[in-house]
Amino acid sequence: MKETAISRVIIGEYSRRLSDYIESDVVIVGAGPAGLTAGYYLAKEGVKVTIVEKKLSIGGGIWGGAAGYNIVVFEDTEIIDEIGIACEKKGDLYIADAIEFATGLGYKARRAGAMIFNLLQVEDIIVKEERVQGVVVNNTSALMVGLHVDPFCISSKYLVDATGHPAEIVGFLKSKKPKQFPRALQEYFMNVEEAEAGVVEKTGEIFDGMFVAGMAVCDVFNLPRMGPIFGGMLKSGKKAAEMINERLKNSIS
Amino acid sequence: MKETAISRVIIGEYSRRLSDYIESDVVIVGAGPAGLTAGYYLAKEGVKVTIVEKKLSIGGGIWGGAAGYNIVVFEDTEIIDEIGIACEKKGDLYIADAIEFATGLGYKARRAGAMIFNLLQVEDIIVKEERVQGVVVNNTSALMVGLHVDPFCISSKYLVDATGHPAEIVGFLKSKKPKQFPRALQEYFMNVEEAEAGVVEKTGEIFDGMFVAGMAVCDVFNLPRMGPIFGGMLKSGKKAAEMINERLKNSIS
Amino acid sequence: MKETAISRVIIGEYSRRLSDYIESDVVIVGAGPAGLTAGYYLAKEGVKVTIVEKKLSIGGGIWGGAAGYNIVVFEDTEIIDEIGIACEKKGDLYIADAIEFATGLGYKARRAGAMIFNLLQVEDIIVKEERVQGVVVNNTSALMVGLHVDPFCISSKYLVDATGHPAEIVGFLKSKKPKQFPRALQEYFMNVEEAEAGVVEKTGEIFDGMFVAGMAVCDVFNLPRMGPIFGGMLKSGKKAAEMINERLKNSIS
Amino acid sequence: MKETAISRVIIGEYSRRLSDYIESDVVIVGAGPAGLTAGYYLAKEGVKVTIVEKKLSIGGGIWGGAAGYNIVVFEDTEIIDEIGIACEKKGDLYIADAIEFATGLGYKARRAGAMIFNLLQVEDIIVKEERVQGVVVNNTSALMVGLHVDPFCISSKYLVDATGHPAEIVGFLKSKKPKQFPRALQEYFMNVEEAEAGVVEKTGEIFDGMFVAGMAVCDVFNLPRMGPIFGGMLKSGKKAAEMINERLKNSIS
Amino acid sequence: MKETAISRVIIGEYSRRLSDYIESDVVIVGAGPAGLTAGYYLAKEGVKVTIVEKKLSIGGGIWGGAAGYNIVVFEDTEIIDEIGIACEKKGDLYIADAIEFATGLGYKARRAGAMIFNLLQVEDIIVKEERVQGVVVNNTSALMVGLHVDPFCISSKYLVDATGHPAEIVGFLKSKKPKQFPRALQEYFMNVEEAEAGVVEKTGEIFDGMFVAGMAVCDVFNLPRMGPIFGGMLKSGKKAAEMINERLKNSIS
Amino acid sequence: MKETAISRVIIGEYSRRLSDYIESDVVIVGAGPAGLTAGYYLAKEGVKVTIVEKKLSIGGGIWGGAAGYNIVVFEDTEIIDEIGIACEKKGDLYIADAIEFATGLGYKARRAGAMIFNLLQVEDIIVKEERVQGVVVNNTSALMVGLHVDPFCISSKYLVDATGHPAEIVGFLKSKKPKQFPRALQEYFMNVEEAEAGVVEKTGEIFDGMFVAGMAVCDVFNLPRMGPIFGGMLKSGKKAAEMINERLKNSIS
Amino acid sequence: MKETAISRVIIGEYSRRLSDYIESDVVIVGAGPAGLTAGYYLAKEGVKVTIVEKKLSIGGGIWGGAAGYNIVVFEDTEIIDEIGIACEKKGDLYIADAIEFATGLGYKARRAGAMIFNLLQVEDIIVKEERVQGVVVNNTSALMVGLHVDPFCISSKYLVDATGHPAEIVGFLKSKKPKQFPRALQEYFMNVEEAEAGVVEKTGEIFDGMFVAGMAVCDVFNLPRMGPIFGGMLKSGKKAAEMINERLKNSIS
Amino acid sequence: MKETAISRVIIGEYSRRLSDYIESDVVIVGAGPAGLTAGYYLAKEGVKVTIVEKKLSIGGGIWGGAAGYNIVVFEDTEIIDEIGIACEKKGDLYIADAIEFATGLGYKARRAGAMIFNLLQVEDIIVKEERVQGVVVNNTSALMVGLHVDPFCISSKYLVDATGHPAEIVGFLKSKKPKQFPRALQEYFMNVEEAEAGVVEKTGEIFDGMFVAGMAVCDVFNLPRMGPIFGGMLKSGKKAAEMINERLKNSIS
Repeated sequence: MKETAISRVIIGEYSRRLSDYIESDVVIVGAGPAGLTAGYYLAKEGVKVTIVEKKLSIGGGIWGGAAGYNIVVFEDTEIIDEIGIACEKKGDLYIADAIEFATGLGYKARRAGAMIFNLLQVEDIIVKEERVQGVVVNNTSALMVGLHVDPFCISSKYLVDATGHPAEIVGFLKSKKPKQFPRALQEYFMNVEEAEAGVVEKTGEIFDGMFVAGMAVCDVFNLPRMGPIFGGMLKSGKKAAEMINERLKNSIS
Repeated sequence: MKETAISRVIIGEYSRRLSDYIESDVVIVGAGPAGLTAGYYLAKEGVKVTIVEKKLSIGGGIWGGAAGYNIVVFEDTEIIDEIGIACEKKGDLYIADAIEFATGLGYKARRAGAMIFNLLQVEDIIVKEERVQGVVVNNTSALMVGLHVDPFCISSKYLVDATGHPAEIVGFLKSKKPKQFPRALQEYFMNVEEAEAGVVEKTGEIFDGMFVAGMAVCDVFNLPRMGPIFGGMLKSGKKAAEMINERLKNSIS
Repeated sequence: MKETAISRVIIGEYSRRLSDYIESDVVIVGAGPAGLTAGYYLAKEGVKVTIVEKKLSIGGGIWGGAAGYNIVVFEDTEIIDEIGIACEKKGDLYIADAIEFATGLGYKARRAGAMIFNLLQVEDIIVKEERVQGVVVNNTSALMVGLHVDPFCISSKYLVDATGHPAEIVGFLKSKKPKQFPRALQEYFMNVEEAEAGVVEKTGEIFDGMFVAGMAVCDVFNLPRMGPIFGGMLKSGKKAAEMINERLKNSIS
Repeated sequence: MKETAISRVIIGEYSRRLSDYIESDVVIVGAGPAGLTAGYYLAKEGVKVTIVEKKLSIGGGIWGGAAGYNIVVFEDTEIIDEIGIACEKKGDLYIADAIEFATGLGYKARRAGAMIFNLLQVEDIIVKEERVQGVVVNNTSALMVGLHVDPFCISSKYLVDATGHPAEIVGFLKSKKPKQFPRALQEYFMNVEEAEAGVVEKTGEIFDGMFVAGMAVCDVFNLPRMGPIFGGMLKSGKKAAEMINERLKNSIS
Repeated sequence: MKETAISRVIIGEYSRRLSDYIESDVVIVGAGPAGLTAGYYLAKEGVKVTIVEKKLSIGGGIWGGAAGYNIVVFEDTEIIDEIGIACEKKGDLYIADAIEFATGLGYKARRAGAMIFNLLQVEDIIVKEERVQGVVVNNTSALMVGLHVDPFCISSKYLVDATGHPAEIVGFLKSKKPKQFPRALQEYFMNVEEAEAGVVEKTGEIFDGMFVAGMAVCDVFNLPRMGPIFGGMLKSGKKAAEMINERLKNSIS
Repeated sequence: MKETAISRVIIGEYSRRLSDYIESDVVIVGAGPAGLTAGYYLAKEGVKVTIVEKKLSIGGGIWGGAAGYNIVVFEDTEIIDEIGIACEKKGDLYIADAIEFATGLGYKARRAGAMIFNLLQVEDIIVKEERVQGVVVNNTSALMVGLHVDPFCISSKYLVDATGHPAEIVGFLKSKKPKQFPRALQEYFMNVEEAEAGVVEKTGEIFDGMFVAGMAVCDVFNLPRMGPIFGGMLKSGKKAAEMINERLKNSIS
Repeated sequence: MKETAISRVIIGEYSRRLSDYIESDVVIVGAGPAGLTAGYYLAKEGVKVTIVEKKLSIGGGIWGGAAGYNIVVFEDTEIIDEIGIACEKKGDLYIADAIEFATGLGYKARRAGAMIFNLLQVEDIIVKEERVQGVVVNNTSALMVGLHVDPFCISSKYLVDATGHPAEIVGFLKSKKPKQFPRALQEYFMNVEEAEAGVVEKTGEIFDGMFVAGMAVCDVFNLPRMGPIFGGMLKSGKKAAEMINERLKNSIS
Repeated sequence: MKETAISRVIIGEYSRRLSDYIESDVVIVGAGPAGLTAGYYLAKEGVKVTIVEKKLSIGGGIWGGAAGYNIVVFEDTEIIDEIGIACEKKGDLYIADAIEFATGLGYKARRAGAMIFNLLQVEDIIVKEERVQGVVVNNTSALMVGLHVDPFCISSKYLVDATGHPAEIVGFLKSKKPKQFPRALQEYFMNVEEAEAGVVEKTGEIFDGMFVAGMAVCDVFNLPRMGPIFGGMLKSGKKAAEMINERLKNSIS
């Protein structure tokens, strides 16, 4: 029957993909601007990347622009030119369409080879020998309705917390290693200039095997927040990708 | 890594089972007393049976006995003796432990070979050439949180509506073929004697390829309800199994 | 201050776009597979198109594949080749990644020039002289929290109901013109073959100025539903686009 | 079409106002008795004032009088005479109609020139060089339904926290500068005499660029609460206006 | 103690007012644009008027303008000039500030002498000898939390249903006299011109002792809706006031 | 251990009572004014009476007086004098304290011997040979949280629907015998005089074995409602008791 | 009209009572077993007592016995004999009917002269010169639906916290005077003997003008809890009454 | 009547069982894998065991396997062979069906003689002379709907906290004896090997009269979590049973 043939092919392929990507070089949590950019640049270099997104759709905070006015702003166009997003200069700023940006970035990351699993929520991490080695995930909707079900695991050589505010994955480290992470996970008052620069500068590995990128960086280092300007997010994602790529290359050779 | 090995073996086996049982001889909707009994008797005869249950646990209305007093009642012990449920005579009645009954019945149905998928909710049926040919199912929790996701399909030679009150699967037929199913799906006032006899008598095929068993029978035929006495439920499930088994045998030969 | 400069440029551009697209040649309600495809083919021909989407993200029922297994199926690749979605042949079927499909389709529709406003919910239509002339929209979240606020309007030469199940826009016609729309808005039992063919065949203008495309067609004509196979959706969207394009050309000349 | 003409004129004017008032001399958060009074006295002096209110209607806690008995009390009539609210002497007290008071005060503040944006919720503040320079706002209903959307900004020379209990804006300072704001934001036990005097006395600038007025003063200084007597609220709002006005004048000259 | 003196004076005055206005010449249900305007014009003529509003604040659908853009539109300025609302000409239309309009109208109605009780929800009407003679009211919040408490009554010579969509008070008549009110209470598709004229024309007495004004008229007569343009609302309220005033005068003489 | 001794004595006594009163002469559903009065007069005559109340506390709509003003009104004092409720004459009316009335009536009914089971919700009735013979009850809180548990039964020679609005028990008859109960279960517009007389007059047996008393009478016969005046409720309850008492006596002799 | 006459007499009497009892000798918060007993013994001695209860019905935790088995237990019968509650000896214990106990105790307290206001929730206390002088109350349902309305006040010479677990009124003292009330408000593990004795022994004045009675005593002094045995509750209430009565007498003389 | 005969026999038997098992040798809280296994091994040795489960069904986290893929994993088969669960070797692991495992384990525990009460939630414990002596339980659904009802008690010689994460029963000890239980009740990062070994090793008596088994052990000792592998759970349950059994034997002799 065609109906069951369709069902079977979908179940089979999903299972195949999940079984394959259950061991990845890099696992990125959060398919927002920083996570997708990191995924794009890693996949482009041939790295095996799994992006885990808890929602049904990807794009994170891009879609609504500012307060639902679906326009986004950049200070330069280097990365969005590469992604292929049209933008227009307005004074010192560049504006783009939020929906084009969200879909275009997701499309390019996926085309570059990053595998994306949506509807999977990270509920813990795997730490062995003081190194982060993967994530513990569960079905988002099962968690939302409070079903009592066990999770499963995805292993990583490098894990990226790109969950934005409030740095959910770092939160797991903090809750179980409070002495190593004494600072509150909290952004500071809004200040665009400082935030755009700081978020890129502080992007990096904060625990053996674990990177932070995007707004999660602001939470971890108490940097200012920056609102609907996305340049820092993209550069942070790109920087994380480049740093991880270098580690991976070094570890092979 | 052992964590991912465990995950992979679970995902692989579930996918294998789902792909296998996506085409079954009999699909039973509802893993309550009638559905499990039907599944037990069919599987015992070697029929390929899939039981689809929307909740996380099986057992339906058995667990709570009457108003949470977890005792159940039977008028005779033929089927529960076969299942292996201890019971005690009290006057004309036999009582058993609700938890022993729920677990024992589920255990025996599963041991006999009936495949049970929990957390799958039927949202429609497949009807072709005026014959019911399967069910359209979805993830229960995804539906509960209102996610917009498409379903998949499980095909059947015979489908059994064992969803209890209010006969959910017959409801799909009724909503789309109101002229063929003019009666309200509704039980009549409680009357144990009439209900216990009637539910067995009326168990049968109500549409080409589709049987009704258990409380759903009362809804379809407006029979009385019967409360926490379960003999009729079991006999109805057994009768449905026997009728379907005969059809399957005849259709083969 | 840079923070207010960013805010001002976003508010100004959004207001400019909304004021411009408040009068469009075609208004499409619903940014799912049919609506985005219709928008793509219309915009490609230079038609002024506004797509109105009530959710924050676009893509409709694409993201979750079947029950959250994020794979989608097609019977041929004509349209997805044009959109640029990778697919793989599995027996008679083609499978693609749901996330690539959702983002790629949205990206291409937007790049072709279709304007998309998310977070706008249609709450009524404009009908004058027995012709549909536009939609009455409101802020989705304001409606969700029950705020008592008036809507605003977007005019159209042609309106497309691409809201999927349950054909929300046709519903407005039905509720106020019950004699002209006596049939329940309801899909029939699942049947992939019939549905895939029927949904394209019946795509068209069902009231002066108003087209139906995608799953809404099944509701209006009580056609079967088809599950996670998307060829019919795309063809229906394309057909609606071509029919409207022709009307627009004829009405000009 | 008249429907779109109406829509366009509304969208255009709102956008114009928002773009204009996105940079104001004074931003007041909360359109209750203290905030509206401050706005009235500032606007009367020609100061550019933006009042940001998270609810759909303004008036704060005025409407319900005491426990829904819609009468309010004053100890003298100086300010309400200026606003134009009828009152009646009862012993040592004056009573007025809560609805007349709420509408009259809002009407006069608006007529005096204070711009009021309702449905905007402050979610953070802008602090640069240890001076409060504005607010970070978002759409109230979008926040209520949990949409993931970025905010926008409104800059101020002086910001007034008139959010009543529990001093929401001071709360942002406290959460990020806990050492400078060690005290709990909490009113003390009810005591009308002390509260009416204290709330006026303590009204003032508590951080560079940031004033507190009305009940928020009680929270910040742990003063007693006072119930449905509104004289202190009005005097506090007026005092804040006078202090800010003087600062503005001095800063110009 | 001053705290109890304040409480006592509030409780006493509220009780006095409620006991006084429990018998009124006119009871208006709904303190939105039509209800407040009717209240203003009746009170101005010395009629004893009680306005019953279920919410805490008055103003109905005025506050949010269109979709939260807080601007309202009029086609002429006769009534708003009398109320004292500033407006600006934009093409053929006049725009005003929604907050100024809501507060100004409420303030003027109250100053003219209309008594307004907020937080009272009408749950039924009094009909004797086939004439509407008053309303049955209850505490709004008690009803919202489902408390089982009896209502009380307010009598009227004339009752005005100004509840807007969906004509709640007419609904009571319809539910108990379905033969006299066979039509669905439902607005027709949006059409500003027809609605603005029709709502005034059809304003009147629809049952002995009962008038309809404002959007409720559209529901009762299935007229088009009109969106954020408020001229028709005000004229409908004024017309109802004039018709009732005439009846009252005639009944006295 | 004293803790378990206390638990055991409670469980034992409750079980003994429930087992005893599971077969009663009269079952009254609803422990409001009519049900408690009926219970009082029946028990006083030595009839075995079970009152079933779904809430935790008894008293129904008495506690809140009118809109929470906890005073109740009577037109004469015959029954409340017997119950022992203090009242005061105000014009033609008598007022009493709602809390004294609720507790006093419950206390006297219980002292007279009526057994009251709270937290039991009736979910159906037993009808055999066209005579109502008892009720089907379940645990209220289990139903509220949606637990799937079977009910149990309490038999009656006579059943009284004293559930007030909307006559829940008659509703079961109506839903399954729509032809015999064609009228909507709905009160008519408020009219105290007609309601107070009518509710007593129409109190009686409406189906073999089933009486209606109190507000449920108004629903069944579409009589007017009467608000916070309780004389009719008490007389209706007393009349039902007297009628049933007579039937019981006749059936014995 | 009789309908309004009834309404007016209720509103007038309630207002009169509330205005009278707004200044009381003793205010008791919580109409459960301890509060009602305290009220009974105080009122019997002619003390002016106001009991404030947040729920619609009184009785607190009495109604449900243990886990809904509506039987209560006592170790002796002194107080319940005085109240007039039938009880039966079972071993060393006495059992009574929970519903008879709840209604009988409320009835007797009210008959003795204690004024009870239900649906009033205490949201703060009045403290002047380091003495508790009254309570700040609001409408329960308005608070439940989150309405922004001010409270009113009731003054007391002595205030009794009889709110049971978790000692709500002491909580106000603790939150604003944390140094004077350092202990968590928390009962200790269940231990009937120790709890029954301790709760009576520790009943007393814990702050100038403020007594604690009943389960609140256990929270304040971290005594064990005791479950469905009510002797300690009653004795605690009686002891509080006696202590306060003595203070009042001394303060007069 | 048969309906009441059924009800009576159920109520009587439940009451008899509850009264009997209200004093048990061992009370186990939580009917998940560890609790059921402990119950099985204790009952098999003739110990009087009561298992208290708050949900309607038993089985805890077994039913859903990993993220709803209903397969479970073991590292060896010793205990499941004894229980009678079919398993299949996959590499170093054994897989079994989650539903067979949940039902089979429950069935065997019950058959061995362990009494199971579902729908009972533990809300506190009994501690006397520094020894845990039992639990304080209440009706789960009554607690869920917030009913104010007292609990009852079940005494134990030994109590087992098998509540899984987050060790609910130990939580009662911790909240009232914070100095003795200073550690957070929290699992450590996932690590299957360490967790499987550690959970068995640390199973034991953590307070006089109180054991911990299963996942609760990980919380108490901050051991790693282990996901859908159940060997450690079963061995922990068995070990607790053996240790308690030995204590019981020693205490007798």
